[in-house]
Amino acid sequence: MFLDCGMKPECLERTHACTGRTCKLHAERPRPGIEPRTFLLQDLLPSKNGEETTLQFLLEVVEILTSYVRKTFDRSTKVLDFHHPHQLLEGMEGFNLELSDQPESLEQILVDCRDTLKYGVRTGHPRFFNQLSTGLDIVGLAGEWLTSTANTNMFTYEIAPVFVLMEQLTLKKMREIIGWPNGEGDGIFSPGGAISNMYSVMIARYKSFPEVKTKGMAAAPRLVLFTSEHSHYSIKKASAALGFGTENLILLKTDERGRVIPADLEAKVIEVKQKGYVPMFVNATAGTTVYGAFDPINEIADICEKYNIWLHVDGAWGGGLLMSRKHRHKLNGVERANSVTWNPHKMMGVPLQCSAILVRERGLLQGCNSMCAGYLFQPDKQYDVTYDTGDKAIQCGRHVDIFKFWLMWKAKGTVGFEQHIDKCLDLSAYLYDKIKNREGFEMVFKSEPQHTNVCFWYIPPSLRGMPDGKEKRERLHKVAPKIKAMMMESGTTMVGYQPQGDKVNFFRMVISNPAATRSDIDFLVEEIERLGHEL
Amino acid sequence: MFLDCGMKPECLERTHACTGRTCKLHAERPRPGIEPRTFLLQDLLPSKNGEETTLQFLLEVVEILTSYVRKTFDRSTKVLDFHHPHQLLEGMEGFNLELSDQPESLEQILVDCRDTLKYGVRTGHPRFFNQLSTGLDIVGLAGEWLTSTANTNMFTYEIAPVFVLMEQLTLKKMREIIGWPNGEGDGIFSPGGAISNMYSVMIARYKSFPEVKTKGMAAAPRLVLFTSEHSHYSIKKASAALGFGTENLILLKTDERGRVIPADLEAKVIEVKQKGYVPMFVNATAGTTVYGAFDPINEIADICEKYNIWLHVDGAWGGGLLMSRKHRHKLNGVERANSVTWNPHKMMGVPLQCSAILVRERGLLQGCNSMCAGYLFQPDKQYDVTYDTGDKAIQCGRHVDIFKFWLMWKAKGTVGFEQHIDKCLDLSAYLYDKIKNREGFEMVFKSEPQHTNVCFWYIPPSLRGMPDGKEKRERLHKVAPKIKAMMMESGTTMVGYQPQGDKVNFFRMVISNPAATRSDIDFLVEEIERLGHEL
Repeated sequence: MFLDCGMKPECLERTHACTGRTCKLHAERPRPGIEPRTFLLQDLLPSKNGEETTLQFLLEVVEILTSYVRKTFDRSTKVLDFHHPHQLLEGMEGFNLELSDQPESLEQILVDCRDTLKYGVRTGHPRFFNQLSTGLDIVGLAGEWLTSTANTNMFTYEIAPVFVLMEQLTLKKMREIIGWPNGEGDGIFSPGGAISNMYSVMIARYKSFPEVKTKGMAAAPRLVLFTSEHSHYSIKKASAALGFGTENLILLKTDERGRVIPADLEAKVIEVKQKGYVPMFVNATAGTTVYGAFDPINEIADICEKYNIWLHVDGAWGGGLLMSRKHRHKLNGVERANSVTWNPHKMMGVPLQCSAILVRERGLLQGCNSMCAGYLFQPDKQYDVTYDTGDKAIQCGRHVDIFKFWLMWKAKGTVGFEQHIDKCLDLSAYLYDKIKNREGFEMVFKSEPQHTNVCFWYIPPSLRGMPDGKEKRERLHKVAPKIKAMMMESGTTMVGYQPQGDKVNFFRMVISNPAATRSDIDFLVEEIERLGHEL
Repeated sequence: MFLDCGMKPECLERTHACTGRTCKLHAERPRPGIEPRTFLLQDLLPSKNGEETTLQFLLEVVEILTSYVRKTFDRSTKVLDFHHPHQLLEGMEGFNLELSDQPESLEQILVDCRDTLKYGVRTGHPRFFNQLSTGLDIVGLAGEWLTSTANTNMFTYEIAPVFVLMEQLTLKKMREIIGWPNGEGDGIFSPGGAISNMYSVMIARYKSFPEVKTKGMAAAPRLVLFTSEHSHYSIKKASAALGFGTENLILLKTDERGRVIPADLEAKVIEVKQKGYVPMFVNATAGTTVYGAFDPINEIADICEKYNIWLHVDGAWGGGLLMSRKHRHKLNGVERANSVTWNPHKMMGVPLQCSAILVRERGLLQGCNSMCAGYLFQPDKQYDVTYDTGDKAIQCGRHVDIFKFWLMWKAKGTVGFEQHIDKCLDLSAYLYDKIKNREGFEMVFKSEPQHTNVCFWYIPPSLRGMPDGKEKRERLHKVAPKIKAMMMESGTTMVGYQPQGDKVNFFRMVISNPAATRSDIDFLVEEIERLGHEL
C-alpha cells in the first residue's frame, strides 16, 4: 500500500486512485529500488504530516467500496457467498475476526474491509428481496458518508444546526403529506419503526394519564391496547417494556387478506369497558409485514373517536404509499390518526436507518419525555433554544438519520419517490399476475395485493397430486425453508418465508428495491421452480 | 460536473479525481466544443450505463469529504461558522433547505453537500471540547463508510453474518475486560447510552418480576430505583417510560466531588423497605456527565448484595478507562455489577453511535424482550439460529454500530485505546494544574479530576473584588453563557457549561478528542480570558 509506482497517469486512468497495490502495470513492472512500507494508524491524521497518508487510505477504502457498489448492481455477481457461523469464526484465508492487543497495519485493515464485504450480503443486489428494506440508493449512500464525516449528534442546534433544521422541515413536509392542517404537529426521527411505535404508546399514555410519568403505572387504571393479529411484533414489545403487560394488548381479528375487522375492535372495546378497564390505544397497520394489508383506517377512527381512544397508524412499511397519487387512497383516514409511524428506510429506499414518529398534537412528545438536563439544554444560550429537540427523545445522543433522506428528496423530488413507489407496485402486480394461475404456485390469499407483498406457496411436483391434509401440510411446511437454504447456498437470490397463523411456511415476496426489473421477477420464479422441482 | 477536461493526468495529480469542475487547469483553459451536461439521479446506478456517472459522483462527494476532513484538523480553520436558525431557514447564498416536488441536478446535490458541511460544526476539530464525544477517527470513519455501503440490518445472521459475529466477539472481549469469568454473559449494541441504561432497568425488572412482561406493572409491588443526584438523566427517562414513575427513582446524595455516599444508599434502601416497597435497582455511575465522578462501586455492590438489589454500572462515559492499566482501578468492583453500560463512542473515540449494554447473566435479555416474530426468526433455517440476535432487542431493525468499532480495535489494538485514554487523562491533569491556582479561575471542586472533566468558573476582573453573595452569584451565572456565545460567534473553540445543584453556571471541560494537544488546552484557557476579560 501507498507505494508510488511511478506510473501514476496510466494507473490513474484505470482506478482514479493511484496506489502501487491496485495498479496492474505496477505489478508487471515493479519500480526498482522502492520497498513497500508498512503504515499504521499513527501515520494518519491527526498525526503530523498525516494528511497525504489519510487521503490515500480513504481513497483506497473508497476504491473498495465503489468496486463493491459496481458489482452489487451486476446480476452476474452473487447476492451472497454463504458460510456458516463456525466457518467464519474459524477464520477464512487471512480473515480473522478476533481482536488483539497489538495493532494491525493499514494494509491489513484494507484487507479486512474487503473481506467484510466479501462474506456479507449484497442488500442492494437487484435480486435481493429478503427484507422490507432493500436496494442501495447512490445519493442516499453519499448522504450517509457525509453524515459519518460530520459525526455529530441531533440533540442540540448547537452542534447540529443544519441537520436539526432539515429534520424539522422534513417532518413538517411529512405531516403535510399525511394531511394534518398546515403540517402542524410534532415528530422525531427514531432508531427504527419499533422505537417509533413505542413512542406512540408512550405519548398516548401521557395524553390520558400524564401522572404515570411521575407516579408510574400504579397511578392509572388498567389500560388496554389493541392491534391486529397481523400487526408488527413491536407493539407487543412496547406493551411489555412500558409496563402494560402483553396480556393487556388485545389482538384483533382480520379478514382473509389480513385487514382488521372493525366490528371486532368495537366488540372488544365494549368488553374491556364492561370489565372496568380503560381502552387507551389502537394501532391500525398501514401495510402489514407479511400480507402487506392496510387496515381500514376510517372505520377504525370512527370507533376511536366514539370511545375516545388514541389512534396510531403504523405505516412503517406502507407509509411510503402516501407519496403516490395512485396508491395513497389505501391510507385514507390517516389524517385522523393521533400519531403515525413512517419508515423512509423501507418503501422509499433510504439507507438504514430512517424512521419517523409523527404526532398530531404539539407538545406531547416534549411533555412526555422531557427531563430538562441542565448540562445539555441550557435555557440561556444565545440562540432560540426551542430548536434543541433532544429533550423530546427517549434517547440522549441521537444519530443523524435525516441527512441522507433530505438529500435523496432533493435529488428525486417528491415526484421521484412517487415514480419509485408506483414502479414497485407495478412489479408486484406483474408477479401476482404471473403466478396466480401458474402450475405449482398457490396464493396464500386470493385477492390482489394491496402493497408489494405477494404471498405464495410453491408446490413441488411430488406434492401436487396429494390430497389436502396433515401429511401434505407437514411436507409443504418444509418446502420453503429448503428452497431458501439452497438459494442462499447458491447465492442467486433471497426472499423471505414464514408461517402465519394456521398457514404453513410460505414465501413472502416484497419489492422495494429500485434495481429490480421484470426480468428479476422472472428469474425469481424460475429459480424457485429450479430449486424446488425435485423436492 | 462530469465534464472531461481533457487534461486528466495533470489535474489528477492535484485532486485524485478528475472532473472539469474541480480542475483549475480546466477553468483556465476550457476545452473548446464541450458543453457541460446536467446530470440527474436517473443517470446513476441502477440505471443502464450508470456505472461511470456513479463512480464520478461518488468520487466528487469523497473529494468534498476528504477536503473537509483535512481542514478539520487544521487549527487555522474555524470550529464552526455560526448562524441563527432564522438565518439558515431564510437560505444562505444558494443553500435552500426546503424540499420540492421536482428533482435537483447532481451538480446542485454536490453544492448542497458542501454547504451542509460549511454551516455545520467540526466535531473533529482539535479545539472542539463541547461534548463527551469528540474527535474524528479516520479508521472509524472508513468503517462507517463501509457500513453505509453494506446497508444491512443486525437482526439476523442471515443478512449480517459478518457483523453479527463481530458484535458477538467484541461484546465477549468487553465482558472479559470488565472481569466477568471467561467473558461469559450477554449484551447488545444499542442506539446510545440512554437506551442502554433503559435496557438495564428492563432486565432488572424481568429478573425479579418476570410476570411484568405479560401482566404489566400491576403484577409487581411498588418498585424503587436508586441513582446519584449527579447521574445521567436517562435513568430518570427510563423510570418514566417503563412505568415506574420518576417519584420511584430516589436520588442519592454525593460527596463534594460528586460521588455517591454509600451510607445514604443504605439508609434510603432501609427506609423504602420499611414503607413496604421493593428496592429493585441501583445505578452506580462510572464517570458522571458533569464532574466525571466515579461512584465507589465496591461499597455500593456490598449494599446491593446485602439487600438483593440489581446493580447497574453506567459507564457510558467512564467505561473506556477499563482499557487503561493506569486508570481502570477507578472502576474497581465493576465485575460485581449485574449490568454495565459502556459507550465506545465517547472516551474511545468511535464515531457516533456505538453503545453497549452488557449483562452478566445469560438469557435475561432474550427472556425479557423476545416475542418470537415468525417472519424474521424462523426456527427452521439452515444455520445455527442462536446467532439471530434480533429478538433480544427492543428494536426490530438495528443499525450496524459494530463494524467501525471492530475495525478501530484491529487498527489500534487494545494498547492503542489505552494510549489514547492515558493521553486524554494526562491532558486534563495538565489543564487542572494550569488553572487551579491561576488568577481569575476557580475550581468547582478542589480535588484532582478522576476523569477528563475539569469544572471551573472564570471570574472576570470586574467580579474579582466583589464579596461573595447573591449579586456576585447572579453576575457570575451569566459569565459562562456569554463567553460561550462569543466563542461560537468567533468560531475559535467550543466547550460546555451548565449549573449544577446550587452552583451557578460553570465551564465543564472534557477531553476525548485524540487531536487535542497541550497547545490546544493553552489556547482554550487564553481564549476564555480574552473573551471574558471585559465582562
